[in-house]
Amino acid sequence: MNGYRDLRVALLGCGSVGSQVARLLLEQGDELAARVGARLELIGIAVRDLDARRDAELPRELFTTDAERLVLGADIVIELMGGVEPARGLILRAIEGGADVVTGNKALIAAHGPELADAAEQVGAQLSYEAAVAGAIPIIRPLRESLAGDHITRVLGIVNGSTNYILDRMDRFGDSAEDAMRVASELGYLEADPTLDVEGYDAAQKATILASIAFHTVVPVDSVYREGITGVTSAQIEAAQSANCVIKLLAIAERITAADGTVGVSARVYPALISREHPLAAVHGGKNAVFVEAEAAGELMFYGAGAGGVETASAVLGDVVSAARRHVIGGPGVPGSSHADLTVLPIGEVSTRYQIMLAVRDEPGVLAAIAGLLAENGVSAASVEQTVPEGSEGTATLVIGTHTAREADLAATVEALRDSAVVTAVTSVIRLEGNA
Amino acid sequence: MNGYRDLRVALLGCGSVGSQVARLLLEQGDELAARVGARLELIGIAVRDLDARRDAELPRELFTTDAERLVLGADIVIELMGGVEPARGLILRAIEGGADVVTGNKALIAAHGPELADAAEQVGAQLSYEAAVAGAIPIIRPLRESLAGDHITRVLGIVNGSTNYILDRMDRFGDSAEDAMRVASELGYLEADPTLDVEGYDAAQKATILASIAFHTVVPVDSVYREGITGVTSAQIEAAQSANCVIKLLAIAERITAADGTVGVSARVYPALISREHPLAAVHGGKNAVFVEAEAAGELMFYGAGAGGVETASAVLGDVVSAARRHVIGGPGVPGSSHADLTVLPIGEVSTRYQIMLAVRDEPGVLAAIAGLLAENGVSAASVEQTVPEGSEGTATLVIGTHTAREADLAATVEALRDSAVVTAVTSVIRLEGNA
Repeated sequence: MNGYRDLRVALLGCGSVGSQVARLLLEQGDELAARVGARLELIGIAVRDLDARRDAELPRELFTTDAERLVLGADIVIELMGGVEPARGLILRAIEGGADVVTGNKALIAAHGPELADAAEQVGAQLSYEAAVAGAIPIIRPLRESLAGDHITRVLGIVNGSTNYILDRMDRFGDSAEDAMRVASELGYLEADPTLDVEGYDAAQKATILASIAFHTVVPVDSVYREGITGVTSAQIEAAQSANCVIKLLAIAERITAADGTVGVSARVYPALISREHPLAAVHGGKNAVFVEAEAAGELMFYGAGAGGVETASAVLGDVVSAARRHVIGGPGVPGSSHADLTVLPIGEVSTRYQIMLAVRDEPGVLAAIAGLLAENGVSAASVEQTVPEGSEGTATLVIGTHTAREADLAATVEALRDSAVVTAVTSVIRLEGNA
Repeated sequence: MNGYRDLRVALLGCGSVGSQVARLLLEQGDELAARVGARLELIGIAVRDLDARRDAELPRELFTTDAERLVLGADIVIELMGGVEPARGLILRAIEGGADVVTGNKALIAAHGPELADAAEQVGAQLSYEAAVAGAIPIIRPLRESLAGDHITRVLGIVNGSTNYILDRMDRFGDSAEDAMRVASELGYLEADPTLDVEGYDAAQKATILASIAFHTVVPVDSVYREGITGVTSAQIEAAQSANCVIKLLAIAERITAADGTVGVSARVYPALISREHPLAAVHGGKNAVFVEAEAAGELMFYGAGAGGVETASAVLGDVVSAARRHVIGGPGVPGSSHADLTVLPIGEVSTRYQIMLAVRDEPGVLAAIAGLLAENGVSAASVEQTVPEGSEGTATLVIGTHTAREADLAATVEALRDSAVVTAVTSVIRLEGNA
């Protein structure tokens, strides 16, 4: 009708994102047809259980449990089931059948992205996954296309809204970690099992994807160094505030040079200090943002909703429109970008700055002993602050800010501090990221 | 060589951006070839005067004054001359010859974007201009492609770095307008003739482009309502601070409904209050940012360098790589997006909030008189603050914050306030934007 050809769109999964994608496809049919030059016909929605359909307003006849069959008749397959199987198998089948695939499945792309991209490239199909990282925020396309003529040097992302919400409460309202977790849980920011979020597994999957795209290489998810936020204390939050900083859980992808001269990539996730002057510091609540440093472009930031059904559906539809236009125009998809084949370097090769908090004996010579110990291990102090809390009986608190140091040297330093006779306890070691 | 075919790239203009584009094309030849699947051969650089070549490190033999001839032999033409002619004629000639065109020329795109886009669409060529708005920040591509399945409702942009620098100094360091202008000028933020920046003409060109893309329609640059920053006073900056706001020069593109029910587009530029909690408030110095509100995606922000030779060159090269990939793949360019044909509505149809500062006679009944006057004109006050400055001799200062009101009603209100016997002077009227 209207002189447009039809493109057959299959939807796999109908959860909070899928139901919104279906709704938008149905409601905005005419407008999308005008933008694409073809009518996007939703031919079916595959679900596991017909009785568990989330959105009662979607036409019943669209639903099926036969995902395999649905995929075979489609020009474009939208996969929003989550998890690795059967999503992976269905996507491979769709690609073999010549369909373009749009997915928001971060676990799958983190684990099997290169395999799926290769399969798509072989048959000239398009695989896109804007919704897999940072929800509604356009970040995959800018990294792959807008910055295609530049060299990205580092990506710092706040890519998990739940943990950002928790840390933001601790910083802004003085909540304890437990209180902030409880509120986050009550507001639905946390899953029943919050481990994926608070231990940084979710952020690590996104770090894998960001690193792979930013550096045109393959970064396995198990090569991502990972620390969650469960160790973040109120004392650390206060020390951050004293240093005009804030603590954020960062997913970092960085091009670094190892001690032996190897140029490689580091992908890592940990809670880190960041200056309050840094744009990432203004990312509050459950919002996400990805800060990109590139040789020519300088500093860029992409900010928005990192989750939410309708928000994420916007990113999915952007990919669908792009795939549909490609179908109308003809020609293969954008080639995969994993051709640099860089080494993935371990955390020990990373250089950054640190803030170390120590409980030390409050007596003459302690500062000199500690300064000497840092110097022996190749770590240089940028600032030292000593406080003697009331009633601390011979114990003082030292907060040391370091210049840039290698992680391996820092680890050796912390080891030596723990063994030192003048140090009662190493109470906190936290990294400081960002140039600002 | 290396089995790649060659794509012939012509560069028109060799100023601060052009010379960086040429350098990057020459230095990164192998890497770009791997990303594109073709070698980008810089076949020439057209300049007006061979003796005025900016970058002495570029090979002399590349330079020519014969732009017309250079264009005819190119697969991709990069236009960075600025101004309307001869840039427009050369681009049309390039498109007729089947070349893809990349330009960073905001004046040209603002004035002739639809004409050039139509010409490109007719022959299946690609016209791209990421560098024309907000320098290095990827904003055109996200608006056109990532959000292609969404409905944008409003775009708020800080798109002129010079004026943001001046306003930021006034806010953060308490500079007078004159002092901030002088420092901006000394640091090279302002042209010899600063009118384009401080009167908002530059921002208005960008508002035209943003509105046209966001709403898939044609928004002529002379339909953009425009106020510059020359009227911004230290008193307004202070009043903004009291209201936990900051003043930013905003380029706004918005889908609005007129009093008669017509749905249309408003494009406008003016200094406005914005809450300090709003992400745009954290855009300091000469940085740019574009805040996008969309029905599904919610709030997004794109932040980065709005100017600078090498920064802007990054955006140009992103477009060049995209055009080159299209050449390799085949098929026509992304279709133009000006198909909605929305009415451009005048400023009188806009609804927003306002802060009004008045000098009034300090006597009983004044507040009631003014409240009545607002109500008569359909404007409702959200807050009123009265102060009696020392030695003001019978005069008080009133700061009124309004609820959302129509611009036409507000104008009538201000007129009535000026005529009122109890009002000594209307000292400031400024709009308040953003939902936060």
